[in-house]
Amino acid sequence: MATVRELAALVNGELEGDGDLEISGLNALDLAKAGEISWLADLRLTKKLAACQASALLVPRLPPDTTELPVTAALIRVLNPGLAAIKIQRFFLPEPFMAAGIHPTAILGAECLIPAEVKIGAQAVLGARVRLGAQVSLAPGVVVGDDVVIGNEVVIHPNVTIYPKSIIGDRVIIHSGSVIGADGFGYVIDETGRPHKRPHQGIVRVEDDVEIGANVCIDRATFGETRIGRGSKIDNLVQVGHNVVVGESSLLVAQAGIAGSTSLGRRVLIGGQAALAGHLEIGDGARIAGKSGVRSNQKAGAVVAGYPAIEHKKWLRVCAVQVNLPEMSRQLRELRRQVAALAANNRQDPPTSKELEKDE
Amino acid sequence: MATVRELAALVNGELEGDGDLEISGLNALDLAKAGEISWLADLRLTKKLAACQASALLVPRLPPDTTELPVTAALIRVLNPGLAAIKIQRFFLPEPFMAAGIHPTAILGAECLIPAEVKIGAQAVLGARVRLGAQVSLAPGVVVGDDVVIGNEVVIHPNVTIYPKSIIGDRVIIHSGSVIGADGFGYVIDETGRPHKRPHQGIVRVEDDVEIGANVCIDRATFGETRIGRGSKIDNLVQVGHNVVVGESSLLVAQAGIAGSTSLGRRVLIGGQAALAGHLEIGDGARIAGKSGVRSNQKAGAVVAGYPAIEHKKWLRVCAVQVNLPEMSRQLRELRRQVAALAANNRQDPPTSKELEKDE
Amino acid sequence: MATVRELAALVNGELEGDGDLEISGLNALDLAKAGEISWLADLRLTKKLAACQASALLVPRLPPDTTELPVTAALIRVLNPGLAAIKIQRFFLPEPFMAAGIHPTAILGAECLIPAEVKIGAQAVLGARVRLGAQVSLAPGVVVGDDVVIGNEVVIHPNVTIYPKSIIGDRVIIHSGSVIGADGFGYVIDETGRPHKRPHQGIVRVEDDVEIGANVCIDRATFGETRIGRGSKIDNLVQVGHNVVVGESSLLVAQAGIAGSTSLGRRVLIGGQAALAGHLEIGDGARIAGKSGVRSNQKAGAVVAGYPAIEHKKWLRVCAVQVNLPEMSRQLRELRRQVAALAANNRQDPPTSKELEKDE
Repeated sequence: MATVRELAALVNGELEGDGDLEISGLNALDLAKAGEISWLADLRLTKKLAACQASALLVPRLPPDTTELPVTAALIRVLNPGLAAIKIQRFFLPEPFMAAGIHPTAILGAECLIPAEVKIGAQAVLGARVRLGAQVSLAPGVVVGDDVVIGNEVVIHPNVTIYPKSIIGDRVIIHSGSVIGADGFGYVIDETGRPHKRPHQGIVRVEDDVEIGANVCIDRATFGETRIGRGSKIDNLVQVGHNVVVGESSLLVAQAGIAGSTSLGRRVLIGGQAALAGHLEIGDGARIAGKSGVRSNQKAGAVVAGYPAIEHKKWLRVCAVQVNLPEMSRQLRELRRQVAALAANNRQDPPTSKELEKDE
Repeated sequence: MATVRELAALVNGELEGDGDLEISGLNALDLAKAGEISWLADLRLTKKLAACQASALLVPRLPPDTTELPVTAALIRVLNPGLAAIKIQRFFLPEPFMAAGIHPTAILGAECLIPAEVKIGAQAVLGARVRLGAQVSLAPGVVVGDDVVIGNEVVIHPNVTIYPKSIIGDRVIIHSGSVIGADGFGYVIDETGRPHKRPHQGIVRVEDDVEIGANVCIDRATFGETRIGRGSKIDNLVQVGHNVVVGESSLLVAQAGIAGSTSLGRRVLIGGQAALAGHLEIGDGARIAGKSGVRSNQKAGAVVAGYPAIEHKKWLRVCAVQVNLPEMSRQLRELRRQVAALAANNRQDPPTSKELEKDE
Repeated sequence: MATVRELAALVNGELEGDGDLEISGLNALDLAKAGEISWLADLRLTKKLAACQASALLVPRLPPDTTELPVTAALIRVLNPGLAAIKIQRFFLPEPFMAAGIHPTAILGAECLIPAEVKIGAQAVLGARVRLGAQVSLAPGVVVGDDVVIGNEVVIHPNVTIYPKSIIGDRVIIHSGSVIGADGFGYVIDETGRPHKRPHQGIVRVEDDVEIGANVCIDRATFGETRIGRGSKIDNLVQVGHNVVVGESSLLVAQAGIAGSTSLGRRVLIGGQAALAGHLEIGDGARIAGKSGVRSNQKAGAVVAGYPAIEHKKWLRVCAVQVNLPEMSRQLRELRRQVAALAANNRQDPPTSKELEKDE
């Protein structure tokens, strides 16, 4: 429990209304009950407030006309209500690290470096020479290969596999079923058409503050490293090929796939089920719409969609016309008929001198 | 072994032919040998009967002309041969629950409620306060988080992960590698472009009689619950985002993806690799073709395809025209040339009064 | 360490330059340092040699003008530098089988046949009557069902699940999280719209020399078998439905999906995120471009793209025109206006006898 005044102070907000109200937790606008706080991410959602039962609300500081919000709840005005909501959510639901130690059924290889403050779950298996930072949590069923290095405050959920020599930064979260560092898809075809496997001697490096969803695959490099840049977030079932580089703070939405050796800049957004061909360069801040297929380099700030991907605005116009294709085809047939008739008709007139010239 | 007469009684069918034949099992039309029974799902497949060696066949009851089926096998006429085949298959291959108890290497957290009739495999790990119904089978390597509730007669295959607080109904089947209840993909971007993780305090609820394929991901809700409705079936590698609601008896084919907060009605069909954007409402009985991308709400009974998805019949017509685009483009160029020539020609005639008016 | 002369002998190559140079390993063109060898897969990449620091290079034997390569490195001329590079890579990084035996925490069912030369990792679980060939490596967390047969020199990475009765050939590699033999997606809908599960009594057969990536799903057959042909390679997150047959030496790129009962010939290439409908026949050597959707049979050697997939060259032309659709639509509107004006104009002339006939 905390008062609205205390929560306002926590998020550096301006209080309007009863600061003495006791708040028990944060909840979504449509689920919040009396005694809870919620947030209005965007003034365009104001109409949702009518049914909102929250006792307090985080609302945007500007513009001034927000004073007219149709609510009786106490208000806390902040620059970014979404961010402030996260802060308050963590206040009510703290997840302090519990140094439960190493479960007796966990198996550790030779020469591992494990700090005292650690939580290694039942049936987890660590290879040889694994090094863990402080306050690492490895859930049950996690398998960590030889020579893996894991930073501080990392959380690895159940049944994740990390192949040998992978490097995982600080505060990384990896959800269940993900596979870090499997061999990439690299074969040489011989003269009889048989593929021969290229050994993959590179690694995967996951930088600080990355979150990786469930059942994601990030392949190790053929040589060198596959790299996920600091602060990037990867959704479930995403495929990251060998030698891919993802820049900082990029977002890869579910089921997206990035083929080998493609390089993303910072703050790139890859929509769900989008695919990027191999050996491409995608500039900072580029946005690739869901289900797109990108076959060429993209400049910083590019916004593309479709397959092959084109400028997003252009794609929208193409889509709008595309549904009329049957009608366009019909019109085109009709026009050809009409023009042929007109031409035939014209030819019945005495030809002009210009026409005569052309005919020669 | 059972006689054809006994099998006919089992499925409430009308027997034609030798009811005393002994049958050893059910098999596919093209694989069945003498002594086995098979089924003809649809009279349009009748031509497949020529090579069929089965000694007995489940066939549709109607229409009357099916009496002319070109086989010597004994026939059992039923309303739905496919359903009857399942019944007979289960008769020959019963899978009675084996209460093998708790394997000594399985690890159970504090205060779990485990009935005597249970099968918990080697290396399975249950968190604290897990509650299991009767006749639950948890395979080796399954990890169940704290406070999970699992109903009766549930089968969880190896290496599945169920995150804390998930609720699993009766007779649910979950195949290997699936992840139930991982955090959704929810971040707030700050003014510097860095994404901040929103804690996910909601849950996943899987209702009765749901089957979930292998390596599926169903994310927990941000707040509230993600819900898979009673009797729905989910194929492999499907992504179900946070706060999605799937209605009863819906089918999600392999590699489909549903973005956050989208809601499906009953008996919805989502084809393979189809994608649904977030916050949509899809009506009862809607059918989304494979590989479609749905960006707007769909009415009950809608049948759509393409990306962006349009009415399926319209999409087929668009596809038929689309392949002619190069030819259409050529014809359009040619027409423009012809029309320009006609116009030039016409202008050499004395202009009509109407034309003169237009020019002013 | 080996001399360039020794390496040339190893790959049956022609040496040019200093054969006494000591080489410590193989590396990529852009990463190789002095003392390392690299390879030039293709003469079109010759411009990359400028920055290359490798002391030796595998280069194509032909054509003769390759003698002009702009490098000071020792050269080894071979027919296929990529294949030769693999051979040299394996020379420097041998991965001899280590018969570590059965880890004490591994659990084996009754009546398993396990050769002495084996490596079964911690927490692995084998069902009853599992048969392993020589030099099999089962990593930690692997679960193998009852009656599975595994050939010689097979490597199964952590957290793989193999369902009962699956058959795995010699030298197969399966990466983490993959699921072999889960039930296919097969239901019969009853008259109320409820789906009923068809038991899957078939199996999966993986032939010799197959490699399966991470988080792949290969479903067991309804009846009979799902089969992955000898030497085929499957990338991460691929879906292979029940009763699919993949021919020899085929390549399935990441996130591709093949629906039930479709059959691929030999040396078929399925691009990333491509989808094949069920019950299709795809001929030998067919190439399905990434993100394609194939809804019809394909002849041997077919090269297709798009959805629905068409001939690849045609698809490229369609794509080139498609982006001009908004302009084509505008031109079509303009033409219709012009032709209407021309027709109106013509009708002001006295009609010809031919026109009069048409009007009747």
